Amino acid sequence: MTPELHNSRFLRAARREPVDSTPVWIMRQAGRYLPEYRRVRDKVSFLELCKRPELAAEVTLTAQAALGVDAAILFADLLPILEPMGFQLEYSAGDGPRIHNPVRTADDLSRLRECDLDQLGFVYETVRLVRKDLPAGIPLLGFAGAPFTLASYAIEGRGSRDFARTKRVMYACPELWAALMGRLADSIVGYLERQIEAGCQAVQIFDSWAGCLSPTDYRNYALPYSKRVFERLPPHVPAIHFLTGNPALVELQREAGGSIIGLDWRVDLRDAWSRLGHDVAVQGNLDPVVLQADLATLKTQTQAVMDGAGRRPGHIFNLGHGVLPETDPEQVKTLVKLVHDMGAARS
Amino acid sequence: MTPELHNSRFLRAARREPVDSTPVWIMRQAGRYLPEYRRVRDKVSFLELCKRPELAAEVTLTAQAALGVDAAILFADLLPILEPMGFQLEYSAGDGPRIHNPVRTADDLSRLRECDLDQLGFVYETVRLVRKDLPAGIPLLGFAGAPFTLASYAIEGRGSRDFARTKRVMYACPELWAALMGRLADSIVGYLERQIEAGCQAVQIFDSWAGCLSPTDYRNYALPYSKRVFERLPPHVPAIHFLTGNPALVELQREAGGSIIGLDWRVDLRDAWSRLGHDVAVQGNLDPVVLQADLATLKTQTQAVMDGAGRRPGHIFNLGHGVLPETDPEQVKTLVKLVHDMGAARS
Repeated sequence: MTPELHNSRFLRAARREPVDSTPVWIMRQAGRYLPEYRRVRDKVSFLELCKRPELAAEVTLTAQAALGVDAAILFADLLPILEPMGFQLEYSAGDGPRIHNPVRTADDLSRLRECDLDQLGFVYETVRLVRKDLPAGIPLLGFAGAPFTLASYAIEGRGSRDFARTKRVMYACPELWAALMGRLADSIVGYLERQIEAGCQAVQIFDSWAGCLSPTDYRNYALPYSKRVFERLPPHVPAIHFLTGNPALVELQREAGGSIIGLDWRVDLRDAWSRLGHDVAVQGNLDPVVLQADLATLKTQTQAVMDGAGRRPGHIFNLGHGVLPETDPEQVKTLVKLVHDMGAARS
Repeated sequence: MTPELHNSRFLRAARREPVDSTPVWIMRQAGRYLPEYRRVRDKVSFLELCKRPELAAEVTLTAQAALGVDAAILFADLLPILEPMGFQLEYSAGDGPRIHNPVRTADDLSRLRECDLDQLGFVYETVRLVRKDLPAGIPLLGFAGAPFTLASYAIEGRGSRDFARTKRVMYACPELWAALMGRLADSIVGYLERQIEAGCQAVQIFDSWAGCLSPTDYRNYALPYSKRVFERLPPHVPAIHFLTGNPALVELQREAGGSIIGLDWRVDLRDAWSRLGHDVAVQGNLDPVVLQADLATLKTQTQAVMDGAGRRPGHIFNLGHGVLPETDPEQVKTLVKLVHDMGAARS
C-alpha cells in the first residue's frame, strides 16, 4: 500500500489513529440522487450497470469526486453474488430485486451450485479500474451482504416486511439453515478476498435485514456466520460491520466481528460507542432524511453526531443508512463540508 | 368496577400485584388468521366492519372466547379517529389504508376540523355491546394510535418505508408539526376517555411507527405529545404504551408515560425491564413469526420470555407485534395454554 493511502484520513480513523479531520463517506453515494449517476443509468439497466466495469467505475469515481468524500465505494449490488450459485436474479423498475427460484427446501438447496467466484470478474475489474483513477489518498471500499441478509433474499425471493419465510426456515429446518448460511459465509469471504486483491483497502459487510431478529435469534442463527466471515478476512484490512434496524443488537454486532461498527440513526452514537467499548472504531450515524431538512437542522444534527463521537479517534462519519433518491446532491456536499469543518475544529 | 374485574389476572398484573398465572392477550387477536373473523369479514368491507357495532362486537367476543385470553381488545382501527377531523380515509384490499387528503402545509392544516368525537359513536357502542357479553372476569381494552403514528399517516397518506415526508414537516415546519401533534393528542385523550366511559377497563396506545426516530428526534418531536396523552388519561385506568421498531427508545418510552410498557421482540425482555426500572409493568414480547415455528421452538421461545420476566409481578404476555394473517389459530391457542401453564408453575 502507498504511504498516501496508508496515511489517508479514512484508514487512520479506521485504525483509531488521530486525524486532521473526521473522514466521511455516504452509503449509496453513487446513487439515483446524483445527476452524474442518472446520466449513466438512463442508458442501461441496473444489472447491466453493475456488470459493465467501465460504467460501474465511472459512477464510483464521479460520486467520490463530486462529493469530496474521504473514501470511494465500489458500485455494485448485494445480490449478484447469488447468481453464480444458481439463483435467477431480476431487477424490475420500482419493484426492487426479485429472485425467481428462492430456496425453501432441502431440494432447492441441493440444486444450488458452489459459488464460482470467477463469474463475478466484472466486480474485480471495476475495482481495478476505479483504483487506477482514484486520487492517491482516497481508499476504495469493497463490500458484500452479510450471510443473514443474503439468506433472507435467497429465501423470500424479494424484500419482506416480517421475514416470516426466512424465520420459518431458520426455526424449522436447522440443517438447511446451517448449510445455506455456511455456504453464503464462505462465498462472501472469497468474494471479499478477491475485491481486496483487486485493489480495495477496506470492506463493508451490510447486514441490512438482521434488525428483524431478537437478540437471542441473532445470537443463535446469524452471529456465528457473520463471525465466520470476519474471522477469515485478512486481518490487516479494516472491515466495517454495518447492521440496521435494531439497536439492541449492538453488543452482539461487535461480538460477531469487524474493526469498525456501522450504526444506524436509531441509536445515539455516544451511547452505542460506550456500549461497544472504545477499543473499536464506529461509523455513522445521521438519519438520511436530515439531508432533506433545512440547513439549521442539518447543522444541529450533524454537530450532535460529531459531539457524540467527541475527540476520541476512530469515528468515520456516515449516514445511518443509504442516501435517499429524493435527496438534493447540494445538501450532501454541504454535509461533507460541515463534517470536515467540525472535525478539523475539534481535532 | 365489579370485584371480578378488579381482581382479574390482567388488571392485577397491570397494577403489579401477584397473580395465579401470567395474563396473556394477543395484539390483533381478532384478525384475519381466525376463521370466526373471516366469516364476518367476508360479508363486509374492513371499514364497514369497524363501523357496525354488532359485527365489531361479535369479532371481539369470538376471538376472546376462541383463544381463552385474559383480555379482549375492542375491534377497531387506528385511523377512523382521523375522519371527524376531515381526513378522507380508504382501505383498499392488499394495499393498506390510504388518506386522500394528507396534510403537508399550513393550508392543509387550516382545512382540518376539530375532531367531533360524537362521530365515533360506533366505537363506544361496540364497547358497550362487548362489555355486556364479555365474561365477568375479562377486562376490555380500548385503544388509539399515538400522536406520532397518527401524524405519520396524516402526512404520508399511507404507510412508508422511511417516513421522509413526515420528518420533513417535523424538521422544517415546527409550528405546523406542533399544531398537528397537539390536536391529535387532545383528540386521542377525548377518544380514549369515551371508550373508558363506555366500558373499557384499560387502554393501549400504539406508537407503531415511532421506531423510525432517533432518540433525540423522539425526545424533541414525539415524546411531549405522547406525554400529554398519558398525563391527561384517568390515572386509575391502566394504560399500555406500546412502541415498536427501536429498542434504543425504551427509556424515553417510559418517560413519555404509561403504567405498562409494551415491548417488541427486538429487545430482550429481561434487559428492557431492567433498563425501564421494575416499578413499571411490562407487556410482551414474543416474535409473531414464532407462532409459525414448530412446537419445540414455540415452547423454548415462550419459556425464554417467561424467564426474562421471572417471578416479578407486572408481566403481561403478548406478542411483540400483531399476529400475522398466515398464523394457524391452533398455534395461538397453544401459546395461550403454554403461557398459563408456565405462569402457574412459577407463581
